[in-house]
Formats: sequence, C-alpha cells, structure tokens
Amino acid sequence: MKQSLYIIKVGGNIIDDEKKLNHFLESFASLNEQKILVHGGGKLATKLAEKLNIPQQMVEGRRITDAETLKITTMVYAGYINKTIVAKLNSLDSPAIGISGADASCIMAHKRIHQEIDFGFVGDIDKVNPAIFQTMLEKKLSIVVAPITQDNNGQLLNTNADTIAQEIAKSLSNFFDTTLIYSFEKKGVLLDVDDEKTLVPTITTEIFNQLKNEGKIFAGMIPKIENALQATGAGVKNVIIGDALDLISLVTGNSGTSISS
Amino acid sequence: MKQSLYIIKVGGNIIDDEKKLNHFLESFASLNEQKILVHGGGKLATKLAEKLNIPQQMVEGRRITDAETLKITTMVYAGYINKTIVAKLNSLDSPAIGISGADASCIMAHKRIHQEIDFGFVGDIDKVNPAIFQTMLEKKLSIVVAPITQDNNGQLLNTNADTIAQEIAKSLSNFFDTTLIYSFEKKGVLLDVDDEKTLVPTITTEIFNQLKNEGKIFAGMIPKIENALQATGAGVKNVIIGDALDLISLVTGNSGTSISS
Repeated sequence: MKQSLYIIKVGGNIIDDEKKLNHFLESFASLNEQKILVHGGGKLATKLAEKLNIPQQMVEGRRITDAETLKITTMVYAGYINKTIVAKLNSLDSPAIGISGADASCIMAHKRIHQEIDFGFVGDIDKVNPAIFQTMLEKKLSIVVAPITQDNNGQLLNTNADTIAQEIAKSLSNFFDTTLIYSFEKKGVLLDVDDEKTLVPTITTEIFNQLKNEGKIFAGMIPKIENALQATGAGVKNVIIGDALDLISLVTGNSGTSISS
Repeated sequence: MKQSLYIIKVGGNIIDDEKKLNHFLESFASLNEQKILVHGGGKLATKLAEKLNIPQQMVEGRRITDAETLKITTMVYAGYINKTIVAKLNSLDSPAIGISGADASCIMAHKRIHQEIDFGFVGDIDKVNPAIFQTMLEKKLSIVVAPITQDNNGQLLNTNADTIAQEIAKSLSNFFDTTLIYSFEKKGVLLDVDDEKTLVPTITTEIFNQLKNEGKIFAGMIPKIENALQATGAGVKNVIIGDALDLISLVTGNSGTSISS
C-alpha cells in the first residue's frame, strides 16, 4: 500500500497575516503524514514593487513579470516567505526544507507563449522531477516550495503556485496516495461567496456540469475546479478546497469542498 | 578511503559582476569532485536597502541587522542570489540545490551577544548538522548555501559566509576529505595587497607567526588565516585562499595560498 502524502497550497491572504500564517503552520506541523507545502506570494511582492517604484500589472490573474519584477518575486517568494515558513516549522519540531522549482531542476518550465500578451518571465510547467521530493520525504522532511521555476537555459520564471501544487501532486501520485489541498480564506466552493452556508461539500464531474449549466458557480472558481477534476483524473486521490485556518478538519474531510471525478 | 569534497566560498565582488560570476560558475560546474558553494551577498543588499531608504551600518565588518535589514538580506541572499546561481549551474548540467542554514535546521545559530554593540539579527554558529549535506551529496547534487541561519525559536539570522563555509568543512571532514577554498578577487595572501608578485604560496603556523611578528601581513587577513589554521587543526585537510577566476588552478594547487597547520 502506498503511503499518504498531502500537498497543501496556502494562499496569499493567509501569508500576509502573521497571526493567521502561524495558526496555519502550527496545524501543518501537527500533521503526522508526509507533507509538502506550496506557498504563493501574497501582497508582499506588490508592496515591495511599490516602494521601489516598479509598476505592476496583472492580466488574467497573472503578474506581468519584467526583469525587475522577476527579481522581486524571486526575492520575496524564494527568499523571505520561504525561509520564514521553514524557520517557523523547524522551531515547531516539524523539520522542513525550503526549495523552489529551480532547485535540483525539480520543476522544469518554459516562458509563457501567448499570441496577444507578453507575460514576461512567467513560466508554464513542462515537467516535475519527483526524485528530489522522494529523497526529502524519505528523510522525514516536509518540503516548502516557492513558486519560482526555471527553463533549460537557467532562466528563472515566476510560476502559478496552484499549478505547481497540482503538478507535484500528479507527479508524486505514482509513489504516494496523494491528496491535494487548496487552502485559502474561504470555507470552500460557495454558491454565494458571501454566505458560508452555501458551501458545496462534494463536487463530481456530474455535479460540476450541472452547477455550471445553472450558472451557480462563481466564474473565478471554474478553472480551479476544472484543474481539480483533471488532477483526480490523473492519479490524485482527492482534491479539497477550504479554509486554511481549518487545516486539520480539511485533512480529515470534515470541512471544505471535496472534489473527485 | 574518504571521497574528496570541496567547500568553496565565493566573495561579494565576484557575485556583483555577472560576467565574473558566470566565469566562476562555469569552472565550478566543470569540477568532477563533490562540492558545496557558499556565497556571500555582495553589494546587492546594500543597494536594495538604499533604494528602500533603510540606513545600513557596518561594524567590525558585520552588517548591523535590524528587522528590515534581515528581511532584505534574506530576500537577496536566500532568494535572488541563491536561485540565480542554482539555475545557472543546472543549465550547465551541474545539478544543484540551493539552501540556507535554516533549511532542515542544517546550521543552528544564536543571536550574537556583544557587550557593547547590538548587532541585531546577526547569528553566531552553534552547530552544523551534516545529515542533509550528506544526503544531497549522495544524490550527486552540489549544494549552494546562502548565509542565513536560524535559532531554536525560528528566528532567522544573518550569518558570516566565511564562517559558514568553515563550519561546514569542519563538520563534513568526518565523512569526506575536505578542502576549503576561499575565493575572492585577489590572487591569495599578498604581502603587498597591490602587488600580485608578493603572493605567499604556503602558510603554516610557523610561517604565519613569523610573518605576523614581522608585521608583514595585512591586518584584515589575520583573522582569515587564523580561522584557516584552526580549520586545518580541526580535520579540514587543506585551506586555499585565491582568485575566484582561477578556480580550477586553485583546486589543483597551482595558484593561491595554501594553508595547513
């Protein structure tokens, strides 16, 4: 039987709030199962860019990443946020190592090609090399992954953390029973974003199509669910979307939205 | 017989110059032996602090590290510089992983205690945990180390890269035949810093005492040599100080100053 592995993405709003982040990390540290944490960047990169007078532009939810912005995202994500999380986990007796997708070439990507928009140094993932993840997990380390990757030429690329979490989960599902958790500031998939009572506890392909046809799902959530369904079709056992402050109950299946094809 | 391991520190002036850094990394990548690269920070952290209007103060060669300066050094050292070096090495088919001393608690430190000066978040090393270094080296990865450590409470600390290189070399000399190389912008220990012809090719304790008594050694070089002699007394086979742009000939013993007790 394969061992359980949790790949947990934590969203920006949690990272921006020290108290919430510490609460989340305490729960993460207390999980006995093997685990990988993928973090986004939050508003820290935007704030730093503002202070440095480097204008930022978001298109289709991605940060247009010129050379100066790549420097900022690499510094903030792979430097400050990654090492702050690692040090906190270590101090909680949860041994952790922080890496980016560039380290040991564990995530290979290419610069995004788009007919109309030049996203700059934004990466789309080609391949996850599972070896280094397996090595660390065997050593009972949890792995903290910053959303920076590289291409074949040594060019660093700013890469979507949701996608990184998904691709790692898919790649490692050959070796582990993988559960992918998207944790953020909402209780899960809500039919009315302002009303927690409208949480959808379970989504299958059938339920998703029905909700979509009825126009009941918030547009921004559609690609997330499509990705989740695709992941469960590609070997990931289960995808759970829910509140980062309820991590333990997300893991035990007692809160959030559970998605499987 | 133990395998050879090179622990190579590269200084700030090389890191600040993209062309020199690439030349150095190409040589580093071409070394067949197992290897660890410890990098300093160069002027990038100072420049970023200037842009952000955070005044910097150097005392006894150390950066007084307040909370904002710690953020900057963590971003620049563990983020930008570390990942830029890793990506370049990977693209040269020299598989590399970048870590800081906080990762996997591989270097434990404490906040510097000083009777007169408050250095802020500056770390002095207590212990190197060799396990994670051994694991990576077994996997044929070279390791790129950023000079950030942590204490038991999860506090990140800005830590001297020379000392990190030395402590790693000492700790790993139980398992490897270790050579510690301090590479920078000079040809080695020079009796006249402006004249390369005054290079001292070999230093032993005896030669060092003699040169010191005769007042022939540049004051800034004395602690470096004392540290080197102490390292060779503690298991490190050889310490070489020399030009980062001559890395291959440093390794083969054909340039630089070779120090052993």
